[in-house]
Amino acid sequence: MKLYSYFRSSASYRVRIALSLKNLPYDYAPIHMLRDGGEQFKPEYRKLNHDAVVPTLVDGDDVLTQSLAIIEYLEETHPQPPLLPAAPRDRAYVRSIALQIACEIHPIDNLRVLRYLKHTLGVEEAAKDAWYRHWVEAGFATLEEHLASDTRTGTFCFGDTPTMADACLVPQVFNARRFKIDTAAFPTIHRIADHAASLEAFARAAPGAQPDAE
Amino acid sequence: MKLYSYFRSSASYRVRIALSLKNLPYDYAPIHMLRDGGEQFKPEYRKLNHDAVVPTLVDGDDVLTQSLAIIEYLEETHPQPPLLPAAPRDRAYVRSIALQIACEIHPIDNLRVLRYLKHTLGVEEAAKDAWYRHWVEAGFATLEEHLASDTRTGTFCFGDTPTMADACLVPQVFNARRFKIDTAAFPTIHRIADHAASLEAFARAAPGAQPDAE
Repeated sequence: MKLYSYFRSSASYRVRIALSLKNLPYDYAPIHMLRDGGEQFKPEYRKLNHDAVVPTLVDGDDVLTQSLAIIEYLEETHPQPPLLPAAPRDRAYVRSIALQIACEIHPIDNLRVLRYLKHTLGVEEAAKDAWYRHWVEAGFATLEEHLASDTRTGTFCFGDTPTMADACLVPQVFNARRFKIDTAAFPTIHRIADHAASLEAFARAAPGAQPDAE
Repeated sequence: MKLYSYFRSSASYRVRIALSLKNLPYDYAPIHMLRDGGEQFKPEYRKLNHDAVVPTLVDGDDVLTQSLAIIEYLEETHPQPPLLPAAPRDRAYVRSIALQIACEIHPIDNLRVLRYLKHTLGVEEAAKDAWYRHWVEAGFATLEEHLASDTRTGTFCFGDTPTMADACLVPQVFNARRFKIDTAAFPTIHRIADHAASLEAFARAAPGAQPDAE
């Protein structure tokens, strides 16, 4: 398998965590999202990924896009260790956490949205930063409330083994900290992210451990 | 089962389509997102849905949130007719279309984001409308390119039977048209949405057919 990834991309990081947890070897193809106006826009890459986003996973003849679809694919083709629990109700719960991060927090703060705010709407740097903080903090506040009150929460989002939910949470926490958001204000999220960071499989997937890290 | 839904909510509409395609009966519990400052914020509802969003599906003792997690749950608990194909590569493809809509288009244009633009950033009505159009049109442009060039596209996004991808596409097209976006500029998307609208299962799930329709 070959993963087209940018070290700092949160969506790429999710897939790297899944590959790492499942001990799947892969070639790393860096796509620098800021260099030369963004390598993701080059025609050669856009043939693989019409949306011009990372990651893309190539497995034999198959070209897979969208981080959560890729993780579900890895779960179906390499079921061990599982990143989803067994019961449908629990699978739905884990997916709902992953989707809350992937749909409610991440998209509003990604690069192209921040660029539109700045270049098209002329929003000042401070207001752009406040925008970023607002959506992460609002999303983390409800997620914290959710995780802190649910009996299924363990050392990870669901029990004591990592799932797809943690593969989404850890990159979002990394991003939040990079933008100087105090994640200690969300103690359950903070604790789970720190626990994950202490494990080799998560460490291997971290931005700083990638070939294109700066 | 009981579905907490708002007739115009795109995410509620996705789940209504899935329930309808699978012929599953359910009680409809309306959550009016604009009345009284938003019924989704009431403490009673927030016990079910920490994020204060719709939909929420209650199935026996289980409370399920996030539209795509709910659709996956319905697929696992009521497999017929399937809303995902059989092969992992094809399942990933269908999920990637659903996620492109649910993660790349929809979140940036939802109610709370438009409100922040208006009330916090003081963006004028015209610029707010341009924002809406921009993200829908940008997302539809790449999705159109994708669907028009992929041999798997049929009368629906994947072949000739509806999948999770169509359950996401149809509500997004409904929304786009409501905001006067000319979807004919995206002929494959336009054709699939019109084909779906002609079918009873999709018509039953449409906003205008709901008890809370205005």
